[in-house]
Amino acid sequence: MSDLPGIVVTGASGRMGQMLIKTVVESDKARLVGAVEREGHDWVGRDVGEAMGSVALGVTVTDEPLEAFSKAQAVIDFTAPAATLQFAKLAAQARAVHVIGTTGMSDEDIAQLEPCGRHAVIVRAGNMSLGVNLLTLLTQKVAAALDEDFDIEVIEYHHRHKVDAPSGTALMLGEAAAAGRGVALNDVADRGRDGITGARKRGDIGFTAIRGGDIIGEHDVMFAADGEQIVLRHKATDRSLFAKGALKAALWGQDQKPGEYDMLDVLGL
Amino acid sequence: MSDLPGIVVTGASGRMGQMLIKTVVESDKARLVGAVEREGHDWVGRDVGEAMGSVALGVTVTDEPLEAFSKAQAVIDFTAPAATLQFAKLAAQARAVHVIGTTGMSDEDIAQLEPCGRHAVIVRAGNMSLGVNLLTLLTQKVAAALDEDFDIEVIEYHHRHKVDAPSGTALMLGEAAAAGRGVALNDVADRGRDGITGARKRGDIGFTAIRGGDIIGEHDVMFAADGEQIVLRHKATDRSLFAKGALKAALWGQDQKPGEYDMLDVLGL
Amino acid sequence: MSDLPGIVVTGASGRMGQMLIKTVVESDKARLVGAVEREGHDWVGRDVGEAMGSVALGVTVTDEPLEAFSKAQAVIDFTAPAATLQFAKLAAQARAVHVIGTTGMSDEDIAQLEPCGRHAVIVRAGNMSLGVNLLTLLTQKVAAALDEDFDIEVIEYHHRHKVDAPSGTALMLGEAAAAGRGVALNDVADRGRDGITGARKRGDIGFTAIRGGDIIGEHDVMFAADGEQIVLRHKATDRSLFAKGALKAALWGQDQKPGEYDMLDVLGL
Amino acid sequence: MSDLPGIVVTGASGRMGQMLIKTVVESDKARLVGAVEREGHDWVGRDVGEAMGSVALGVTVTDEPLEAFSKAQAVIDFTAPAATLQFAKLAAQARAVHVIGTTGMSDEDIAQLEPCGRHAVIVRAGNMSLGVNLLTLLTQKVAAALDEDFDIEVIEYHHRHKVDAPSGTALMLGEAAAAGRGVALNDVADRGRDGITGARKRGDIGFTAIRGGDIIGEHDVMFAADGEQIVLRHKATDRSLFAKGALKAALWGQDQKPGEYDMLDVLGL
Repeated sequence: MSDLPGIVVTGASGRMGQMLIKTVVESDKARLVGAVEREGHDWVGRDVGEAMGSVALGVTVTDEPLEAFSKAQAVIDFTAPAATLQFAKLAAQARAVHVIGTTGMSDEDIAQLEPCGRHAVIVRAGNMSLGVNLLTLLTQKVAAALDEDFDIEVIEYHHRHKVDAPSGTALMLGEAAAAGRGVALNDVADRGRDGITGARKRGDIGFTAIRGGDIIGEHDVMFAADGEQIVLRHKATDRSLFAKGALKAALWGQDQKPGEYDMLDVLGL
Repeated sequence: MSDLPGIVVTGASGRMGQMLIKTVVESDKARLVGAVEREGHDWVGRDVGEAMGSVALGVTVTDEPLEAFSKAQAVIDFTAPAATLQFAKLAAQARAVHVIGTTGMSDEDIAQLEPCGRHAVIVRAGNMSLGVNLLTLLTQKVAAALDEDFDIEVIEYHHRHKVDAPSGTALMLGEAAAAGRGVALNDVADRGRDGITGARKRGDIGFTAIRGGDIIGEHDVMFAADGEQIVLRHKATDRSLFAKGALKAALWGQDQKPGEYDMLDVLGL
Repeated sequence: MSDLPGIVVTGASGRMGQMLIKTVVESDKARLVGAVEREGHDWVGRDVGEAMGSVALGVTVTDEPLEAFSKAQAVIDFTAPAATLQFAKLAAQARAVHVIGTTGMSDEDIAQLEPCGRHAVIVRAGNMSLGVNLLTLLTQKVAAALDEDFDIEVIEYHHRHKVDAPSGTALMLGEAAAAGRGVALNDVADRGRDGITGARKRGDIGFTAIRGGDIIGEHDVMFAADGEQIVLRHKATDRSLFAKGALKAALWGQDQKPGEYDMLDVLGL
Repeated sequence: MSDLPGIVVTGASGRMGQMLIKTVVESDKARLVGAVEREGHDWVGRDVGEAMGSVALGVTVTDEPLEAFSKAQAVIDFTAPAATLQFAKLAAQARAVHVIGTTGMSDEDIAQLEPCGRHAVIVRAGNMSLGVNLLTLLTQKVAAALDEDFDIEVIEYHHRHKVDAPSGTALMLGEAAAAGRGVALNDVADRGRDGITGARKRGDIGFTAIRGGDIIGEHDVMFAADGEQIVLRHKATDRSLFAKGALKAALWGQDQKPGEYDMLDVLGL
């Protein structure tokens, strides 16, 4: 057991942090060696399992990330841009793989990761699901292969609590479709279709967002022509999917040279 | 053959008129005995089959509806409100079943049908598809059976030429869902979802419209709760569906007492 | 809190038992007052939360069901036929609602419940999901409304661990379709379609079983004619669905007269 | 009009032949210059439009293929292996593109095409739909990218008249999936799942066939893992799809060097 790669989870008390901890603990390919929270958080100093309302895990929540990273082979980090930039430096110093699922990073933020990537492995992705990353790649290829006789529609289903429409992943798929066609998404996106819209405009990429119940996430990219349709579909069936993808990236990173990678590298595509 | 019910089609030169003629001719339960166009139309006096660009059918297009109706057991009519009101009087006079698929009739138009329904059978419906009518009924029942823990979404797919969203049938299904819940659709309809919408409002009925290719028409009514979903789906796979529904209504009407009926009566529901 | 209905769960250590306990504990409409296991089980005498590998719940597992039932308003029971018959007598004696999700009960077993139903409320169902019960009812009605021009196919998706095909729920839906048509399912079931089958036989009810991943359960009943299809679909998205259905039945039972009920009664259909 | 590529259709009286003729006539990118039937067929010598029960097209059905091919830029041929081999020689002699949709050709038959391909363009495919060919390619790539944690199922829907299960296209998709994984389909195909099957075997490729109504053809390739699924779907919505694909191949072939091609070449993939 003790020679399994050791993982630290940052943002341990958050919804995603707890999911990551559970995923690492239940895996037989890695072990949890650290849980990081910000200074002053009331979980600091407590056993992370007990803080989560369950049994003790033998790992105490700490507000000293470098110390934690030094004992680990990888850090999984779904926090916020400012924290992630700091963690990137510390992970590079500790030569630990840094898996970044943090969203909302600006181009400047991303540029700051570059020196860290010279010393350690960084894997960064907007969506850690293997399937969604593969779907994005397929979408671009199919959009490139088919002409505008095929109308493209991105259709997504999510739970009732989601506050934005379309989903970030739907937009990512739309970007991939636009890239495949060599156009800018902003020029062709057709959103919120309602009322007397007139006939569909050739070349448009349509978006629709369906909301209800506890649907984790489903995305369809439809290419519809006269006579036939192709649909590329992804369904998430377990909320731990994204945590599992992050863990997979952490394990994959053990064997890589320092550098910046994404989930397509992890997938080997 | 000659004792099969004789059918007259009005608006013979239109897209729907031609589909109706083809459907009657191909049926082994009815025969075409008349084709009506308005005075001055260049099809009048020609064989209707030849006018359609195919072989002769032995039926000459006429602009004298009463004469045509008098030789028929039923009239199938997908024209416009003013013409339909005139045809209703003539069909009643001829004691012919009048199947009305005309859309856009006002409440006053509909009131004017009433005296005609005292002398002859009238079957009128916004959608002549048996399946859609059944789906509407199911939607109302399921909406009544389930509480607002089930979010209702009406999702429809149509071809790229459709100019309005959501479809009339989608709205009809939404009305049925609202009726099942005892609310007014206008108070709960959520259309054109896009941007930062906030969480889904409990009790809302969402509508989304997908457009592409040559999709004839597909409608889903989704009831999504935590833990489970029910979806009621209708797919049209043949554009002649509506013509076939109209013919079925014309045949069913042969055995009925004078009165006004709809497709639920034809279905026996 | 203390005046919420008190629930006892039997078979506490089983997969379903643990799910039921979790569901009751997380509900704000009921409270857990007992957990029963068979004599000699090593959970007896332990706190049920701790036995489940989590925090203490203040309820000790007992092997004396009558004592537990006497302090409860309802018993939820997914065990085995012999145990369930014994529990039924004790629940009747304690005047507690008895919710039975036990499968594999014979006609004689069921007959033995009858005297218990004179003293207490019994709710028994092969599938505790509200949605599946509603779908079964809809399937029967639609099959009765449509003639054999509509081919019926029952299609189900389940996870890779499922050992039987088609699922029990698929067969239940097939029975409902056959009942709607007034035929015996055995005379019309078409299972395991493969090879040179010849054209589909009119009136048959087809079954197909798809297996993969962690799909909890999805059932489609398709009615396919020339020109149109109706599909009635149910998707389970959370394994706790059946536990929630059972809890709903337990709460509903509080206000009923003694007697035997099923989930359609709970649904009010 | 007269400098549009001239097309000859073989097997003119067959169901596919008539569809091909209609497709060419309705296209504005090609014109019909010949219709071939076998010696002695009662259509020989008649106008092909009239023989089809519609208006004259000015093309007389002939039983002399070489004469017809000599006036054409392309031959579209969905007949039988023996006839196709003869047509291949004549098309090569006439330097006309030969589009072959004939099924059931043996490896020896295919070998005999080789000399013809030295003199003229041959495009041959088991399925002329662009979408299905693309889906086959995607299936192979996705199967290669994902490991056996993803269970593969091929699910197909066809009309009630289809006599074999699974469809040829479903098997072609299964072959592509097996090739992607580097296994032989025969070793892993799981067909006709029914009864007590035990848990799904890792690495198997499952097939299910649904039959009903007038469904033209729908194919799903599902990759289902714990936590997520990818589905690649193709739907045919118009029976003329295959004729249109053949015409597209005929036009594409105008600009190619002599040689043997398939639909992936036509698609540019």
